[in-house]
Amino acid sequence: MSFQKPPGTQDIMPGSTELWQYVENTARDICRRYGFGEIRTPIFEATELFKRGVGETTDIVEKEMYTFEDRGKRSMTLRPEGTAGVVRSYVENKLYGEPDVSKLYYIGPMFRYERAQAGRYRQFHQFGVEAIGSVDPALDAEIIALGYGFYRELGLQGVTVDLNSVGTPAVRAAFREKLLAYLEPMRDSLCDDCKSRMARNPLRVLDCKVDQDKFTNAPSIIDSLDEECEAHFARVRECLDEMGIPYNLNSRLVRGLDYYTHTAFEYKAQGIGAIDTIGGGGRYNGLVAEIGGDDKPGVGFGLGLERTLLLLESQGIKPDLAAQADVYVVTLGERAEKAASALLQRLRVAGIAAERDYLGRKTKAQFKAAERSGASFAAVLGDDELDRGEISLRSVTGGDQQAVKLEDLANTIKNKLKSEKGNNHS
Amino acid sequence: MSFQKPPGTQDIMPGSTELWQYVENTARDICRRYGFGEIRTPIFEATELFKRGVGETTDIVEKEMYTFEDRGKRSMTLRPEGTAGVVRSYVENKLYGEPDVSKLYYIGPMFRYERAQAGRYRQFHQFGVEAIGSVDPALDAEIIALGYGFYRELGLQGVTVDLNSVGTPAVRAAFREKLLAYLEPMRDSLCDDCKSRMARNPLRVLDCKVDQDKFTNAPSIIDSLDEECEAHFARVRECLDEMGIPYNLNSRLVRGLDYYTHTAFEYKAQGIGAIDTIGGGGRYNGLVAEIGGDDKPGVGFGLGLERTLLLLESQGIKPDLAAQADVYVVTLGERAEKAASALLQRLRVAGIAAERDYLGRKTKAQFKAAERSGASFAAVLGDDELDRGEISLRSVTGGDQQAVKLEDLANTIKNKLKSEKGNNHS
Repeated sequence: MSFQKPPGTQDIMPGSTELWQYVENTARDICRRYGFGEIRTPIFEATELFKRGVGETTDIVEKEMYTFEDRGKRSMTLRPEGTAGVVRSYVENKLYGEPDVSKLYYIGPMFRYERAQAGRYRQFHQFGVEAIGSVDPALDAEIIALGYGFYRELGLQGVTVDLNSVGTPAVRAAFREKLLAYLEPMRDSLCDDCKSRMARNPLRVLDCKVDQDKFTNAPSIIDSLDEECEAHFARVRECLDEMGIPYNLNSRLVRGLDYYTHTAFEYKAQGIGAIDTIGGGGRYNGLVAEIGGDDKPGVGFGLGLERTLLLLESQGIKPDLAAQADVYVVTLGERAEKAASALLQRLRVAGIAAERDYLGRKTKAQFKAAERSGASFAAVLGDDELDRGEISLRSVTGGDQQAVKLEDLANTIKNKLKSEKGNNHS
Repeated sequence: MSFQKPPGTQDIMPGSTELWQYVENTARDICRRYGFGEIRTPIFEATELFKRGVGETTDIVEKEMYTFEDRGKRSMTLRPEGTAGVVRSYVENKLYGEPDVSKLYYIGPMFRYERAQAGRYRQFHQFGVEAIGSVDPALDAEIIALGYGFYRELGLQGVTVDLNSVGTPAVRAAFREKLLAYLEPMRDSLCDDCKSRMARNPLRVLDCKVDQDKFTNAPSIIDSLDEECEAHFARVRECLDEMGIPYNLNSRLVRGLDYYTHTAFEYKAQGIGAIDTIGGGGRYNGLVAEIGGDDKPGVGFGLGLERTLLLLESQGIKPDLAAQADVYVVTLGERAEKAASALLQRLRVAGIAAERDYLGRKTKAQFKAAERSGASFAAVLGDDELDRGEISLRSVTGGDQQAVKLEDLANTIKNKLKSEKGNNHS
């Protein structure tokens, strides 16, 4: 009997995990500077939470959730996105009682039963931030800047920001009528997706990949904003301008859900096939109340990490991250082999990444393994050296060897690594 | 409608997540030094994998798994432990074709539907390592040293290692008969748990918390080892001695599963109530073949992170980790408030953790928020200062203020933080 990973999931192996760690560390570091603290909510939540927090009529809730009954007969669902759980946690832990805005970030797996295709996974991973408790448009702008900075600090080129305001629910309801009046005469000429969206969420029709060229004269939600919405949106743009964050106004950008208000934005990138949106977010002033809390405003984003990784690959960005050994200890003879564990233990406790052979291989094969390990140095221990309390140190790729007292080995390697690093920087 | 987290799960909030990060970073760093690379396998796997890899008759598989049918009618289970998925991934990704031993570690959530109690969660977290491909007893010892070093480097006191050999399946079968012959006459005096274990896994009877005092003259598996098992076990102990890792021989220590062979070990600690085992592992030479791969030997451990955190708390270990701001920007006046986002953006891009108010609060309230934020410095920006291109910098706790040119602010703060750090270290 042999087993495979579930369809749509990945095994991330050494050699790739280092790139994930790089992306995650970059996210953590920028969150620290922008004043966001990490929150970790459970992998699954009550199904009802997502019906409420994502929306009963969304594709996610209707078709894509991993829902199951637990042994206590409760309906649970693997989280399909991060915001609902964070908001649930904000309410349950009474963070609305805190005097300051709650600025939270998360990194972790999400689950949607989607049709399998390249770059789409059923277990995928998101980096998201949520700021709850303030209506300040500066916060919208700072969050957009945070996500933009995340991509930049990873070294990515060509990431752009699309920006829109979707107004308040009242503004949207009025715009919806105006838009339907515009669409109705052309209904027969539209694709099936558009027809279905006209009934369910007409604002998303404008976003249709097939038909969008037909909508050049469509009404724009930007022109329909009321005074409050306009002021908020103007201030978001002003902050972005002052911060030097470039953006494209895109009046057709909508977020699917009813509780979104004011700011909506997406990060776009070329180079990963048809998928050009790599993350997005917006303001959700209605969501906290929807989930049973006080009526607190919120704003946040969720960025897809698989797409970020694809983009790093497509731009050839490979930070020097491999978890490589500093030194590989090659042994000659039985006594030397027996002494290896204690020697490696001393090196490892001293902070050095040390590797060795565990397959009883001959010297030549050990040297080959040393090369594969990516170690900078080989330390060669024979029975004779052992008797003298010495070891031979050399570069893995060959060159002069140097006899080093065993008790000096850790320090000698550290100094060599330091000067090697210095040379690389100069 | 209000929502709660699922029973047995946690919300980990800022203030606690920093401690989790500290534990995880310590694990990653020690794994790097011992030559283990990170693997990430899916959160759920085919149910059959765990039946095979954990055992049909174990409590985990019989009573505790989160099993569900996906939309493709496949039976899936949230992983109740880490080894089965790693071994499945080792086999599926053909790592047995690699020339070197696969040394892998994982950190992540696991799921068991257990009775809720303090320190027991249904979603819990483990740090584990697996080394597959070598029978070298030095590897067993190095893995024991890695786990021991993990606890030590976290700053924990009083963690001890219990060590045993459970032999090969043939050795265990012979010992089982000997043990049953010893237990049979006292069957009626034993607790119900013991009676049930006599039928299912008699070796675990010796471990019974209730009856163990009755077993002083019980046969010991150590005395029943064959020559091969004895030699392996002797070499493990020798390596540990040479590495300076202390351990207690405990001939009653058994791991529950049939494919465990030779080395078995547990980490123990006082101070977190009745639960004294904080992690454990052993050699599993039969598992890779059981899961459909070549007959490759393996050895590893799994450590409970919740228990590690409890232990850190009970020993009062609180590393200085809070994700605190470096500077809090206090604004006086409308123009200053409007200039804040751009100023903070410059600081954050320069590597400084900068915080501000988003609630339109008056100066005094902003200073209070600055104190709560844990920031070292307050930078006070008024409309007048803004006109002069300056800002007033002071310690959050008060003291002299200093006028600093806006363009010098980032560097001034960096230098002050550096000299502050220097003072703390001296």
